[in-house]
Amino acid sequence: MQLAMINDKMMPIEEVGMEYLDRGIFFGDGVYEVLRSYNGKIFAKKEHFERFANSLKAIEITNVDANEIEKKVLSAFDKAGIANAKIYFHITRGSGTRDHLPVAHLKPNFFLTITELQDNPKLKNEGIAVSTYPDIRWKRCDIKSLNLLPNVLAKGDADKKGCWEAVFVDDEGFITEGSSSAFFGIVKGKLRTSPLKANILPSITRKFVELCAKNIGLGIVEKSLTPKEADGAEELFLAVTTKDIIPVVKFDGTIVGDGKPGKWTKQLIEEFKKFT
Amino acid sequence: MQLAMINDKMMPIEEVGMEYLDRGIFFGDGVYEVLRSYNGKIFAKKEHFERFANSLKAIEITNVDANEIEKKVLSAFDKAGIANAKIYFHITRGSGTRDHLPVAHLKPNFFLTITELQDNPKLKNEGIAVSTYPDIRWKRCDIKSLNLLPNVLAKGDADKKGCWEAVFVDDEGFITEGSSSAFFGIVKGKLRTSPLKANILPSITRKFVELCAKNIGLGIVEKSLTPKEADGAEELFLAVTTKDIIPVVKFDGTIVGDGKPGKWTKQLIEEFKKFT
Repeated sequence: MQLAMINDKMMPIEEVGMEYLDRGIFFGDGVYEVLRSYNGKIFAKKEHFERFANSLKAIEITNVDANEIEKKVLSAFDKAGIANAKIYFHITRGSGTRDHLPVAHLKPNFFLTITELQDNPKLKNEGIAVSTYPDIRWKRCDIKSLNLLPNVLAKGDADKKGCWEAVFVDDEGFITEGSSSAFFGIVKGKLRTSPLKANILPSITRKFVELCAKNIGLGIVEKSLTPKEADGAEELFLAVTTKDIIPVVKFDGTIVGDGKPGKWTKQLIEEFKKFT
Repeated sequence: MQLAMINDKMMPIEEVGMEYLDRGIFFGDGVYEVLRSYNGKIFAKKEHFERFANSLKAIEITNVDANEIEKKVLSAFDKAGIANAKIYFHITRGSGTRDHLPVAHLKPNFFLTITELQDNPKLKNEGIAVSTYPDIRWKRCDIKSLNLLPNVLAKGDADKKGCWEAVFVDDEGFITEGSSSAFFGIVKGKLRTSPLKANILPSITRKFVELCAKNIGLGIVEKSLTPKEADGAEELFLAVTTKDIIPVVKFDGTIVGDGKPGKWTKQLIEEFKKFT
């Protein structure tokens, strides 16, 4: 015998929609992706679907055909007819009575949104401020899972401080990444960013930023920055799928460089356009 | 302009039910509680609602009256008329377009289930097996949040190994707690369990286990066990709200004591009954 209550309404459990019994909400038992299109063409499609397949595998959702998901997403994108779109989708392990141990043969749930992206030239032209937040996340941030509460808390903290993004600092005093972005610095004339380990997401935009750096002759050092190094960096910037490169002009209240987007950052932004 | 797709159906975002846009599913942006009743009386009611209020506060869901929630839960329990019930409820920050930063004035979502508890005397009489799993969880396990993917993965791993529960072992080699239970050992005639820090849930059953230990003259040492200590412990057991004390008779494949529920464990189970 089981009863449920949704907001103020009581009902037998049999009358509750499966969307309320989604393991996604009970446990965050699912993974997601975010893609974007530029003028009708999805950016780094292959890489995003590969990463999604890796996320599914990592949390052992094995009864989903990643190719079918790709077809479904692409068909939705075609039907939407939005040239500059943000495509979000997630898959959860399925719906059922709440139990940590999933029952066998659950049917995964799929959810997607496609949103028209608005251009925000101010972000790129003027840059943004970031603040630091302790990296209290789990140890598998390489999995793009629905367990994002620490990211939400970090973003909220940054917002209170008048900042656009929070960057996580781990127990050893190293910056890992932003709450929803990859983090970069220009230090002694070279590009610095965290190496790919289980403590950061294998950002696809990061991969293209590194390609851009090679193309413009900027050396790359994959070594996490400390907040002190970030404070004294020549330039700082973030990489985000939906906005590619965003200059950072203030770090925990300290002005970066001359307080304007740096020369390398601007060159990388230009170079990035060639891929899009 | 925004479109959505739920499983195979596309629709304008305006037609999507708010339950699909719950921050609970996008981010695990919510907290929960589990209570149980014994013969029509809710166990440790005050403690559970206090912990829930603490969880809400910790993730800064500030526009919920914890007293109203308590009233709502108790009224649902009364209406359900289930004497031995498991009561689960969660509150999320609300529903809306997916953005890490919550918009102001979100209306929190409340969801509850009340389920009749089935007695499982075998668990208590014969005890269960546990296996270890790396503690890959976030650093605020004292908050009872909806970010439970590592717990799900740990439980799945234990199940594959023929075990009923997984116990987490941290990077320093200490057992923190079970995936959905508190963990205890009897070592050199004393009760051993992890001290209350941010790396474990302040288990309410744990509190009553300690009261029971005092009542029966069993000394308490709040110091985390290592797997080696657990391997060689005189007795091991778990504490879970819905099942109070469960003897552990096998740890990572090693028989605990004589492979049967231990004498202190049995005494604690008897003593616990006085509170219920």
